[in-house]
Amino acid sequence: MRLALLAAALLVPLAAAAAETRIPDRALEQAASLRERALADDTAWQVTESLTTEIGPRIAGSEADARAVAWAVAKFRELGFDKVWTEPVTFPKWERRSESAAVVGNNAQPLALTALGGSPGGTVEAEIVRFPDLAALEAAPEGSLAGRIAFVDYQMPASRDGSGYGPGSAIRSRGPSLAIRKGAIGFLMRSAGTDNHRVPHTGITRFDEGLTPVPSAALSIPDADQLARLAARGPVKVRMALDCGWDGEYTSQNVIGEITGRSRPKEVVLLGAHLDSWDLGTGAIDDASGIGITMAAARLVGQMPKRPARSIRVVAYANEEQGLLGGRAYAEKHAGEIALHQLSAESDFGAGRIYAFNTSGPEHAQAATRQIAEALAPLGIVHAPGEGSPGPDIIPLSAKGAAWAWLAQDGTDYFNLHHTADDTLDKVDPEALKQNVATWAVFAWLAAEAEGDFGSRPGPMPKPGN
Amino acid sequence: MRLALLAAALLVPLAAAAAETRIPDRALEQAASLRERALADDTAWQVTESLTTEIGPRIAGSEADARAVAWAVAKFRELGFDKVWTEPVTFPKWERRSESAAVVGNNAQPLALTALGGSPGGTVEAEIVRFPDLAALEAAPEGSLAGRIAFVDYQMPASRDGSGYGPGSAIRSRGPSLAIRKGAIGFLMRSAGTDNHRVPHTGITRFDEGLTPVPSAALSIPDADQLARLAARGPVKVRMALDCGWDGEYTSQNVIGEITGRSRPKEVVLLGAHLDSWDLGTGAIDDASGIGITMAAARLVGQMPKRPARSIRVVAYANEEQGLLGGRAYAEKHAGEIALHQLSAESDFGAGRIYAFNTSGPEHAQAATRQIAEALAPLGIVHAPGEGSPGPDIIPLSAKGAAWAWLAQDGTDYFNLHHTADDTLDKVDPEALKQNVATWAVFAWLAAEAEGDFGSRPGPMPKPGN
Repeated sequence: MRLALLAAALLVPLAAAAAETRIPDRALEQAASLRERALADDTAWQVTESLTTEIGPRIAGSEADARAVAWAVAKFRELGFDKVWTEPVTFPKWERRSESAAVVGNNAQPLALTALGGSPGGTVEAEIVRFPDLAALEAAPEGSLAGRIAFVDYQMPASRDGSGYGPGSAIRSRGPSLAIRKGAIGFLMRSAGTDNHRVPHTGITRFDEGLTPVPSAALSIPDADQLARLAARGPVKVRMALDCGWDGEYTSQNVIGEITGRSRPKEVVLLGAHLDSWDLGTGAIDDASGIGITMAAARLVGQMPKRPARSIRVVAYANEEQGLLGGRAYAEKHAGEIALHQLSAESDFGAGRIYAFNTSGPEHAQAATRQIAEALAPLGIVHAPGEGSPGPDIIPLSAKGAAWAWLAQDGTDYFNLHHTADDTLDKVDPEALKQNVATWAVFAWLAAEAEGDFGSRPGPMPKPGN
Repeated sequence: MRLALLAAALLVPLAAAAAETRIPDRALEQAASLRERALADDTAWQVTESLTTEIGPRIAGSEADARAVAWAVAKFRELGFDKVWTEPVTFPKWERRSESAAVVGNNAQPLALTALGGSPGGTVEAEIVRFPDLAALEAAPEGSLAGRIAFVDYQMPASRDGSGYGPGSAIRSRGPSLAIRKGAIGFLMRSAGTDNHRVPHTGITRFDEGLTPVPSAALSIPDADQLARLAARGPVKVRMALDCGWDGEYTSQNVIGEITGRSRPKEVVLLGAHLDSWDLGTGAIDDASGIGITMAAARLVGQMPKRPARSIRVVAYANEEQGLLGGRAYAEKHAGEIALHQLSAESDFGAGRIYAFNTSGPEHAQAATRQIAEALAPLGIVHAPGEGSPGPDIIPLSAKGAAWAWLAQDGTDYFNLHHTADDTLDKVDPEALKQNVATWAVFAWLAAEAEGDFGSRPGPMPKPGN
């Protein structure tokens, strides 16, 4: 996932004149039994196990991407969704083929690194110049990196809400272009992660227009430690050899399953997650667990004694990792249906327990937001007014005016695994997954039963910061 | 390290008629201040940092092996040892060049594995046959693995004393030959480890005489989980490509530093550790920390107001990992000096705190063993009569009659890292290292000051089991 912090402006009340939105007592009563059913249901685990085991890594544009799409169509059907369809998403395809690096010279030794998504291939051998953070690289004199490899050695901190990822991911997105402007022929960074294993963290980067891209990679955290120790002793030369790059276009699919609403079927509560993963791990916490949670939650709502008033739409987005391509395509295609998207949310911050809830709803939807939060309280969840942000694939939709909900997962351990080979099924706690499903099911049910709206209306919303 | 369990026979009293060995009160008094000095000394950390950073991985026979020998000679001199010398150790050289594997077919995906030391290179693609443990492989009918890859999927348990490693390492040493006898063309095992990371555990294997070796490798634990899940769904085909193998002979060196005794300089207390490592990590806990602990402890003893009565000899053994080659060479070369080796011990079970102490000393040395244990008690160490074993490189010497001591480290986490890419400096706790140094320094000082012997005498001892 890519983390977007919410501009405070997004929370400004939108339409003071609207009637107050309320959730009927009967729906609230039914939410309690739905919650208990969800806590005993292992569908999310089964789905997560199936996707990670049968498909495995599924980087956008790969052969496994196509298998994942077919898998998702079949899984929605198997789970009893009323409608299942796909919507095409076209994007340039990036491939990793091989990568290696080593310190050369008196302290010769291999280094564990991984190319950043979007990096060109190439082999460079040069002295490194170490910078403690992005500001230090930014302050380097023009031309000072001529013929050198820049090494940005910033350690991101762990935090429950993932806020430490901001500066870490900024190095990944902005570092390579900054380094090129100073003359660098290669770019290395300490992985944006919080573990201490030899599993480097990949993630997309971009090169500014007009620059010639250079090989760009992330070192595992122990390798960054090692390079820092060597650099403290004197000049260090590194050889990095990346075989990777962009290779044509590919068309994948957003895969969508819907539980059709009984009385207002065109109005939808959208539950999102992304189907693609990076190629290094099997994408268990990023984001097979999100697929499992949302599919399982919608299925449980579909098994209520009566269908919800509105439709529950689960979107398994294509290619989130390389720039929200699925989320953008969905927003474009459904740009004329913003007001029908009552509330949209994405599960894309791992498989940890949910601890907070909020919506972007304006004043007239605050009471309904509080009602949902009260129904979630027995799951250990607090209402967090004024906080939150849309999940990554929801950003393009919310930028067009769609209201969003925030189901905040505990991400303390998320960046131990994020975008690494270590993102595998054994890291998922089945009990935490059930708590997630219960949360999403109750949320979806109540949002679909609410009388009145949550503030979605066409027209530009202030763009969320990132 | 390779773990050897002690045959109880080794503890049988050897010479009931000998005079009782005792440690003088003055030496015991001095031990207290030595212990406190050691707890404030960071030499072990500095040495461990230097070896892992400047040399890095140092598999026996590599270019880094030669650098490590030169490093050890220089480090002993820098630390003020009285004598420094090397003794040659010749062995066949094994090299890892590249390795990869993948599930092929409908669930195509890469697998993280590493060749076992001693494996031949080669590419095989075949259906796997999964066995839950070595006994199940052993029970497979003759010929039943023809054209298949055997997969032994046993999970070793974690334990403080490392006893769970026995069955795990038995699969590594015996599994390949067993599989070949049943017709297998390749061998896979779940790593003998206790972590959940994508870092497979290597280690030496051997092929029985008369068999044609086949490519043999260990999967990381998450990959073994994955292969087990796929195997539960139906037939699974795996392609493994190993480029590795034996390549000529190499002569490395045992590097030895000595603090010369003041009154009985030919009698030695031997502190061992091994200088080589596997190639995947930087060998921080296996066994740079042992090198750091023993060098630092001997140095501190050498800084006492007067030299110890006996000499303290630190041996940095060559090529422990591929079969105790350094330990065997030392025992051969010093076979005529067994009685001079008063007590020998090796630090080769990581960098965890020491929790127990014992010696192989016979009846007449029991009181002295208890005296040493009492001096160690303030460090949280208990006397464990009847327990223990010589460290791996001490086995060949003890098999010739040399008495040994056991300084038992807490190995609960040891097999999370052992023989993996994750064995790096960040896993070493500097405070635990100081506790180790204090233990070894007090032990070495008191053993060197003891009046009377610990039972070493030439002649075969019962061979320790393994």
